[in-house]
Amino acid sequence: MTRNRFDVWAPSASSMTLVAGGVDHAMSRADGGWWSADLVPAGRMIRYGYRIDGGEQVFPDPRSRRQPDGVHGLSQTFELQHNWGDADWTGRQLAGSVIYELHVGTFTEAGTLDSAIERLDHLVELGVDLVEVMPVNAFNGVHGWGYDGVAWFAVHEPYGGPEAYARFVDACHQRGLGVIQDVVYNHLGPSGNYLPQFGPYLNFDVANPWGAAVNLDGEGSDEVRRYILDNVRMWLDDFHVDGLRLDAVHALLDHRAMHLLEEMAAEVESLSAHLRRPLSLIAESDLNDPRMISPRASGGLGMDGQWSDDFHHAVVANLTGDGGGYYADFADLDALVGVFEDGFWHAGDFSTFRGRRHGRPVTPSVRSWQLVVCSDNHDQIGNRADGRRLATMVSRDRLAVAAALTILGPGTPMIFQGEEWGSRQPWMFFTSHPEEELGQAVSEGRKKEFAKMAWDLDAVPDPQDPATFHGSKVAWHELDDADHAGLLGWYKCLIEVRRSYEAFTSPDFAGAARGDEWFVARRGDAVIAVNFGAEELTLPVSGRLVAEWGRADDTDELVLGSASIAVLVDVE
Amino acid sequence: MTRNRFDVWAPSASSMTLVAGGVDHAMSRADGGWWSADLVPAGRMIRYGYRIDGGEQVFPDPRSRRQPDGVHGLSQTFELQHNWGDADWTGRQLAGSVIYELHVGTFTEAGTLDSAIERLDHLVELGVDLVEVMPVNAFNGVHGWGYDGVAWFAVHEPYGGPEAYARFVDACHQRGLGVIQDVVYNHLGPSGNYLPQFGPYLNFDVANPWGAAVNLDGEGSDEVRRYILDNVRMWLDDFHVDGLRLDAVHALLDHRAMHLLEEMAAEVESLSAHLRRPLSLIAESDLNDPRMISPRASGGLGMDGQWSDDFHHAVVANLTGDGGGYYADFADLDALVGVFEDGFWHAGDFSTFRGRRHGRPVTPSVRSWQLVVCSDNHDQIGNRADGRRLATMVSRDRLAVAAALTILGPGTPMIFQGEEWGSRQPWMFFTSHPEEELGQAVSEGRKKEFAKMAWDLDAVPDPQDPATFHGSKVAWHELDDADHAGLLGWYKCLIEVRRSYEAFTSPDFAGAARGDEWFVARRGDAVIAVNFGAEELTLPVSGRLVAEWGRADDTDELVLGSASIAVLVDVE
Repeated sequence: MTRNRFDVWAPSASSMTLVAGGVDHAMSRADGGWWSADLVPAGRMIRYGYRIDGGEQVFPDPRSRRQPDGVHGLSQTFELQHNWGDADWTGRQLAGSVIYELHVGTFTEAGTLDSAIERLDHLVELGVDLVEVMPVNAFNGVHGWGYDGVAWFAVHEPYGGPEAYARFVDACHQRGLGVIQDVVYNHLGPSGNYLPQFGPYLNFDVANPWGAAVNLDGEGSDEVRRYILDNVRMWLDDFHVDGLRLDAVHALLDHRAMHLLEEMAAEVESLSAHLRRPLSLIAESDLNDPRMISPRASGGLGMDGQWSDDFHHAVVANLTGDGGGYYADFADLDALVGVFEDGFWHAGDFSTFRGRRHGRPVTPSVRSWQLVVCSDNHDQIGNRADGRRLATMVSRDRLAVAAALTILGPGTPMIFQGEEWGSRQPWMFFTSHPEEELGQAVSEGRKKEFAKMAWDLDAVPDPQDPATFHGSKVAWHELDDADHAGLLGWYKCLIEVRRSYEAFTSPDFAGAARGDEWFVARRGDAVIAVNFGAEELTLPVSGRLVAEWGRADDTDELVLGSASIAVLVDVE
Repeated sequence: MTRNRFDVWAPSASSMTLVAGGVDHAMSRADGGWWSADLVPAGRMIRYGYRIDGGEQVFPDPRSRRQPDGVHGLSQTFELQHNWGDADWTGRQLAGSVIYELHVGTFTEAGTLDSAIERLDHLVELGVDLVEVMPVNAFNGVHGWGYDGVAWFAVHEPYGGPEAYARFVDACHQRGLGVIQDVVYNHLGPSGNYLPQFGPYLNFDVANPWGAAVNLDGEGSDEVRRYILDNVRMWLDDFHVDGLRLDAVHALLDHRAMHLLEEMAAEVESLSAHLRRPLSLIAESDLNDPRMISPRASGGLGMDGQWSDDFHHAVVANLTGDGGGYYADFADLDALVGVFEDGFWHAGDFSTFRGRRHGRPVTPSVRSWQLVVCSDNHDQIGNRADGRRLATMVSRDRLAVAAALTILGPGTPMIFQGEEWGSRQPWMFFTSHPEEELGQAVSEGRKKEFAKMAWDLDAVPDPQDPATFHGSKVAWHELDDADHAGLLGWYKCLIEVRRSYEAFTSPDFAGAARGDEWFVARRGDAVIAVNFGAEELTLPVSGRLVAEWGRADDTDELVLGSASIAVLVDVE
């Protein structure tokens, strides 16, 4: 059961040494810059690492499956032992689904995958279909958001390591929940990245906001792409994951004729056929480029879905009235009409925030569910200096509006942990770099970032302060409060309505109209009507009322009280 | 007739002054960062420039149409006066054409557009359809290749300026020749680039091998793109040019949903409909990406054609036996079979030179004529330290083979000035930067470049030495030599054969086969057969012999002498 074969890619090395159980073993050179060694007899769970060109330092395996002592320590041999109980699982596709985004370290008090399993029934009751876990790969320190991963093949040990991740995915499947995993292929974290010692993993000529770009198209990049594609396969195949959310794909700099994403889409399509279950690739993209989610056969990159910031901005800017920063161009109900009708609001017109024209219209092949939409997510909350949620910025009535628009509008809705009861607990940016200098740089960097935006710097929590991490934990106790529980009921009701009437999961975009203080969207024979104003509103719409917030009556025409929402079906 | 309205884009300026005829005129701010001034009464051909924020220096107009004193001097007002005589011109499309590449400064002894006109009849007799002129925009110094242009809207004064360019294009049209103009939008030259004083024309975050990239997708880039697109329109519309060859498009860094090239293709398509003549866009691209030349409607960038280095490398590496540098992977007849059958030789397989996989197969929409092919061009010759031509590296028989493969193979053939008679005159890299320091840097840079490649540095001509320029002038006197005249006859014969039989301009790629020392290509009912070897060759091919080099007989089967070529039609 235990692996006794060691392979590592180190194309420029003139000698490679496997250091296992404290003993040096010379490796032999194989083809294409690979080195290998067999360890006989093979022990179980051996700590090991690689010495390059006889150097002093022993580095962890670039493809390490376990880093028990953190990302700087030795790797550990690993074979997944988990006894899978999801043989009946047939998968879960993006179309028709509701996503729930969670962060393992803060979803529960214990912050582990096993403790997260204990909360899965809450998600089943809520009615979601897909659990999206923020990065679980190994990163520097004990707690953090996870986007600074450096050991991409290992599961973060403080979360419970790879066996715990298998248990988590299995537990999801056994409850009918699919798993989307957040993965970061556009950069490596600032500490613990030993890949450049082994090979040309990075492109130092080009930087993105998080450091050197990954070498996707330069010399030696075939193996770098293989590294990423093998990582994709590992999660989907070995760990039974149902899809990946690909972080910041605009930073995947690749000028090849076959872009990495297209190559990935092709491999995942084959794997899906082989595994006989749907597998989804969801890109985080702010390019407003329909090519991202267009079929490969028609020149697209073949992603199944992508995040749509425009939807978020249109909802939040209209509910908060905030038109600053990247909310400029969105704080008008026209933007809400735009995202309902066309998906992208910026489809070739001028973006004030970018100071240039942006995007292009979605092509006819694009299905509305290919856009993943939300009113809050880890990034949007984290982009506020103090990590405040939408729930602390607008009234409960407006939270209900955000929920209705997101869950019943076009797009695949995503809910961020605690949003479903309007949690007021902040979600702050936190790190735990053990290196003092790096920690300080991160703390100061965060302050500088918000100083530019004229935030009160006293309101910017120190990412390195453990209190920032602990203060970001999901506040489950809020559910004891009737107001919170009431909002949870509204979320459940909306998801139930979404499931019950096909109109709400139609691949088409919506029709929409607005007044000064009202917004109405039509999806097939269903209508979502919102009265933002203080006055009663009458609309010439007749149908069957299946959900209401506030006061709504639809005897002959729709009468909607102030700050009220009505959802109608069978509308003529 | 004379322009008296002055407009300039300077979005960050707080005041702008038009300096005309030595007098300052305050400009008024218009929309979108534009400034304008009217000059009454308007004089004819006024020297003018712009003073930014009351500064001391007066800069030339970014859209200057004339720079009589060079790129650092004042601009001059200009209205094209040329009386066009090409009213009957209906255009010339890429499909079916033969291109002739020339450099105005070296094509004739005088090095002007007017003197080039005197040589046009030679091109008509040769049988070419399109004249491709290397850059004519204004650049620093008197002579140079032209790729260091800085005043993109002005025609280089030493060539004769804009009126002379109009005369040249007109003269071409009146002889039935179309004009393709080489334009550079990926960078600006190292001296005389005042654009950054005016606005965010450059993206200093990203460099390409020639300096800062042009800002195509950052803040303010809408106007930068307009600058380029207006330049495109100016050449095609005002100067009646028939197409543009776009330099090094891989360096046009643009992450917008609508790439600059796609936007350009759409505008040029509209312009073509408006002008009622075909207009071509030809990209210099080494990406081997069929998206470049695929229709916009199917996800392509919509270029009409692109250069195909693979063809050049396959021909040259096989004829010279040189397999070094970027000729690696090509010095085998399989590569020649590959480019004849599939267009790209690297279509997803490993490229030794790049150290990674490269390219992808051409899509079914791609027509063979969309690939512009050659056995020599300004770049390939210039990439040799001493500017030696293929003609000095292989036998006359092999030059004849290069010609036959290029002119009758799939692809749109391009001939470089003098190639048609196997000129032995070198084509060297030359510059004439007046600034001593820059000149020295360029000279040393050139040496350093070739030092890396282990060339004898004494063989590297000094680009700044006027002798390097003069030594690169086309040696027309060579035509007095019978051998040269004989090769010219072969070129004429091949072009005549190409024109006479449809098979040679078929949109399809070819069938091809090889032996140890022979190569045969089939295009429809035509065959091109080459015997590289010293032994007589017999091939079971029967057809009508329409061109032969060396010794060929096709009574029952094809008997081909050593170092011979046969072109057959009506092959069964």
